[in-house]
Amino acid sequence: MQPLTLYVLDLSRPAGADPDAAIIRRQVGDAVLRTDDLGVTRGDGIFETILVHQGVAQAMDAHLDRFARSAAMMDLPAPERALWRRAVEVAAAEMAPLAPFAAVKFVMTRGVETEDIPTGFAYGFVPDDPAGARLDGIDVVLLDRGYRHDVTETSPWLLQGAKTLAYAVNKAALREAARRGAHDVIFVSSDGYVLEGPNSTLIARIDGVYITIPVALGVLPGTTQGDLFAALELAGAPTRVSELFPADLTTADALWLCSSTRGAAPIRSVDGAPVTVDREVTAMMNDALGARTT
Amino acid sequence: MQPLTLYVLDLSRPAGADPDAAIIRRQVGDAVLRTDDLGVTRGDGIFETILVHQGVAQAMDAHLDRFARSAAMMDLPAPERALWRRAVEVAAAEMAPLAPFAAVKFVMTRGVETEDIPTGFAYGFVPDDPAGARLDGIDVVLLDRGYRHDVTETSPWLLQGAKTLAYAVNKAALREAARRGAHDVIFVSSDGYVLEGPNSTLIARIDGVYITIPVALGVLPGTTQGDLFAALELAGAPTRVSELFPADLTTADALWLCSSTRGAAPIRSVDGAPVTVDREVTAMMNDALGARTT
Repeated sequence: MQPLTLYVLDLSRPAGADPDAAIIRRQVGDAVLRTDDLGVTRGDGIFETILVHQGVAQAMDAHLDRFARSAAMMDLPAPERALWRRAVEVAAAEMAPLAPFAAVKFVMTRGVETEDIPTGFAYGFVPDDPAGARLDGIDVVLLDRGYRHDVTETSPWLLQGAKTLAYAVNKAALREAARRGAHDVIFVSSDGYVLEGPNSTLIARIDGVYITIPVALGVLPGTTQGDLFAALELAGAPTRVSELFPADLTTADALWLCSSTRGAAPIRSVDGAPVTVDREVTAMMNDALGARTT
Repeated sequence: MQPLTLYVLDLSRPAGADPDAAIIRRQVGDAVLRTDDLGVTRGDGIFETILVHQGVAQAMDAHLDRFARSAAMMDLPAPERALWRRAVEVAAAEMAPLAPFAAVKFVMTRGVETEDIPTGFAYGFVPDDPAGARLDGIDVVLLDRGYRHDVTETSPWLLQGAKTLAYAVNKAALREAARRGAHDVIFVSSDGYVLEGPNSTLIARIDGVYITIPVALGVLPGTTQGDLFAALELAGAPTRVSELFPADLTTADALWLCSSTRGAAPIRSVDGAPVTVDREVTAMMNDALGARTT
């Protein structure tokens, strides 16, 4: 996913100053980061990836909320909301003529080690076409995330629930899934609680109720899942936030992994065991996501 | 720790070509990395930090071995040993007139997402002066690393034992230690095995035997610990690789955290409980490290 637009944020300027003066357009492919940026040497930063529909970033407030939450969990300075919103808007608007659906990734790192000024940037790109995954469904495997379900409470330094740049384990888990012939992963805690995907949120329908996992278990608050639950509730469907266990997945009516760029991807197998794909509800979900105006 | 020398490696060239042609000197402070480098966006890369004494990198082979081991654990291409050795030598030599003791950090990332060419660089810097820590000792706290002691075997995608750029948890643990008034951390597995520091290896002396932790528990093979064990064995001291538990630390004769840039730092307290600092042996250890010629 080659960036097609790139903006660097000047985070040294005083808070409240004109955002546009702090958002600097760069050429795609410019090298703009130093090798001693802590985002590089330590994965010491946070990010969000936001869907862009016809130049408009979707679920902006939910992403900005989560970005601020991640910053707090990482003891990073609070992101200046108006500045980040504006940067994402600018990068998103530039994608409008390039693709009807695009995405913007925005990143804040702790900056260069001795300087105490965060590094910020946002770039636009065109994600992989989700049509196949949405229609045919995806094969997933369950992988141990290694942590107990309660580490956000007992061990906050493990940063579970923060969306950090330190995603090497998530990438390694996806490589393990590929080795097993699957497309994606659902992580399970070391004590057997179902969690989330490496970059997606689980929704399970069990006995007609749409269920997702509590953030207290160290999963990210799902921005796409949030909008899907709102749409489901509008349509009169019951929703719930609840713990789930692997055995629940085998008895579910249907399962989805939800993320900004892929939308709702139905799961067609878990560890090789078939899961029913509900094409009608999946289409309704993705239509609802596509109909968002913000 | 501001870099004082910087070299970028051209890892697109054919293996076996002249290393010097692939090692490109850059100005310190140059921005040389793209924002879509997977080392930045995913912490998807590996690194080593090597001590430089009078321009000569120390324990080079042990660091290159570990670098190759980390690459394999991350499914990265095998680093070309002669090239990386030469890059570290060049960056190290340039530090000779700047400081008697310096360090070189060298990094390989998975590169820009769509290009399949790793990114490589090496920079020299002067680390914090370790004299105070070596003389006075350090206060440490025990923190849960969240994983069981056996995850390298059961769950290799958790990358325990690989030295990756995804160090956000290590940095968060050090911030937690600071909040508790301590200098450093010893991680403990979720099932109660003593592991290592966020960037150091533990040596415990118990009943006169010098003990370090097996790498099978997901700790890094310690390059400095390796040289210290060699020196201790030469001096006739017994050494052993063995599991330890927190209760063992309270009964130890002495404890050290060992790393390339700090050498052997004696521990003077664990969770507030005093530990005897053996200044004589500590001085002998650091003298042995300082007397290395390679």
